[in-house]
Amino acid sequence: MEGQSRTDDIVRVPANGREQFYDSRGYGRPAGDALDLAPVEAAHLLYRGDLDSVDGRGFREYLSAVDGLAVRFLVYKDLRDRGFYCSPTREGWSEAVDPDDTADFLVYPRGKGPWDEVVEHRVHVVGERTTVPAAELDGGVLAVVDEESEITYLDTRRAAVEGDTDHEPPAGVAATLLGDRVVAWDPPESLYEQGFYGQPLDRDDDALQLSLVEAAYLAERGALDVQADDRGDGHAAVLARGREAEGGRFDRRLTVYTTLRDRGVVPKTGFKFGADFRTYAEVESVEELGHSELLVRVLPGGHTFAPRDLALDVRLAHGVRKEMVFALVDSQGEDAAAAGGTADGPDIEWLRVQRLTP
Amino acid sequence: MEGQSRTDDIVRVPANGREQFYDSRGYGRPAGDALDLAPVEAAHLLYRGDLDSVDGRGFREYLSAVDGLAVRFLVYKDLRDRGFYCSPTREGWSEAVDPDDTADFLVYPRGKGPWDEVVEHRVHVVGERTTVPAAELDGGVLAVVDEESEITYLDTRRAAVEGDTDHEPPAGVAATLLGDRVVAWDPPESLYEQGFYGQPLDRDDDALQLSLVEAAYLAERGALDVQADDRGDGHAAVLARGREAEGGRFDRRLTVYTTLRDRGVVPKTGFKFGADFRTYAEVESVEELGHSELLVRVLPGGHTFAPRDLALDVRLAHGVRKEMVFALVDSQGEDAAAAGGTADGPDIEWLRVQRLTP
Repeated sequence: MEGQSRTDDIVRVPANGREQFYDSRGYGRPAGDALDLAPVEAAHLLYRGDLDSVDGRGFREYLSAVDGLAVRFLVYKDLRDRGFYCSPTREGWSEAVDPDDTADFLVYPRGKGPWDEVVEHRVHVVGERTTVPAAELDGGVLAVVDEESEITYLDTRRAAVEGDTDHEPPAGVAATLLGDRVVAWDPPESLYEQGFYGQPLDRDDDALQLSLVEAAYLAERGALDVQADDRGDGHAAVLARGREAEGGRFDRRLTVYTTLRDRGVVPKTGFKFGADFRTYAEVESVEELGHSELLVRVLPGGHTFAPRDLALDVRLAHGVRKEMVFALVDSQGEDAAAAGGTADGPDIEWLRVQRLTP
Repeated sequence: MEGQSRTDDIVRVPANGREQFYDSRGYGRPAGDALDLAPVEAAHLLYRGDLDSVDGRGFREYLSAVDGLAVRFLVYKDLRDRGFYCSPTREGWSEAVDPDDTADFLVYPRGKGPWDEVVEHRVHVVGERTTVPAAELDGGVLAVVDEESEITYLDTRRAAVEGDTDHEPPAGVAATLLGDRVVAWDPPESLYEQGFYGQPLDRDDDALQLSLVEAAYLAERGALDVQADDRGDGHAAVLARGREAEGGRFDRRLTVYTTLRDRGVVPKTGFKFGADFRTYAEVESVEELGHSELLVRVLPGGHTFAPRDLALDVRLAHGVRKEMVFALVDSQGEDAAAAGGTADGPDIEWLRVQRLTP
């Protein structure tokens, strides 16, 4: 059987195309008894030998002739091999399609197809060298085809972070700004033991070392009274030191830290995991501390991901049994933190990413 | 007992300083019966209460008064707590010191001290926000103090990568450039089965998908005959496509790929680990393939590391039981690859980094 291109985007299989390829196998969009196929579907039918040619071309020639088809074909084939029916995300191509959807394919649950209204995954296809704006990771699955043509599926989800930690920090604890950290020499025990702020200088020592972001958060709430020698107001000196060290990133991190604490989640440094924070959803005391659940990387709202960096973060998080979360902070949020206020929820978008085996 | 600064860098403890702090505990450099201390040693003795003051200051004031002392103190204290004696890396301060050494501390094996000539570790101290030029990672230990004052030790080692794979690729295999990959439609089985080049399109299919870097390497050796349609010479088209996709990084990666293959090591994509390559030191056949041993990240020779990125790579490699290796390619190496030649060994510096618990 042979197909003919009707447009750049549509290959028509005449005569019994519908019966052969749509009714039982879910390819294409019926056009009477004929069938319209997207190029990736046509390529798959050519590959399987179900179509003999498209515009007189065989599989190899057709794959070369259509720009960018190879990467989409590899993902389409992989999903078909795994037993899924898929449709291109185009109006009229499936009962379930939303014409505004920016995904490449809709994948149906096993046993379902384009005549059903249920969708299992919405798949975006990229090559490993294609960068992906954060805004495009909207709850779909990112299928990354690497340079050796292996496919990594990353499931994305927009979901806020919430916790149940309930700790009110004490007031006016004296502390000193010391380079890139703040030391509270004699804080109440609860600041560390219940609040999980800072890190004791020593097991046998009361002194508590706080990060700049912890100190800025506590100072803002009147919980910490920071001495900064010749630098005037201690709270301002902590903010200034943070910005000196990290630039705009400091305000983004403080925005995220503040939002997490305000929602009952305890953030601690994620340095050992290459992240900004690891988080604990419920801390009653440090002695009974559980496993941290999330790794959080803080990024500007307009961030564009390189798939390789995404793969690195998600793989690491998986290996330490945590979920990778990106906190995307828009500049309004930064300004709010810079002004000494706290950002409202909507200034941070929470993007969770996990490996998926479809 | 009290100390007095003699210079910015030296605190003198008069009288019996030598006997008290050097002879049995390895602090400082003897000056007759007196003892000269580096600021970090003085801070540690103040912290322990063994010194009462330096220039009239107690521990807290002294730590604040000396710029950048806090970070060095934290690492020095941690190493002392672990039972090591350490000296600053200064001439005359230890029998083992090399005056050109750029490390911050020499750490002696347990039970040894500055009067011995054996060194266990050479330690560079940095805060997590301090970037580190690759050239400074010269076989010592990098002690990174993170924002919450926890310390991560990273052991660095310059050591070439060698393997025992012995495979001669076949000649003149036909292949097609297809976007960001090259497909050999009917290659001899050995290209994949013994050489571990490429990735089969399907279990039941002869077609082999090659990455651009694999294809460039094979084409350079006459093993692959690439058709690139209207793009003229297939080998040149592969190089051009690689540079279009990755810029100068493509030539660096090709230099490293070529050097590894020439040394009997098989590199495959490290995408799933966020690296450039994972490598196998000995491949006889894909069927009997072992575990890959190394993760390789390719970087320009003048690269400067952010400790957090380093922590991420090393932690991930550790989690998947591989060693993290950075291949630092100088621009001469890039030029050699760009000219179609292969780079000599000396154009690549191999830097291996592992976590260390001292």
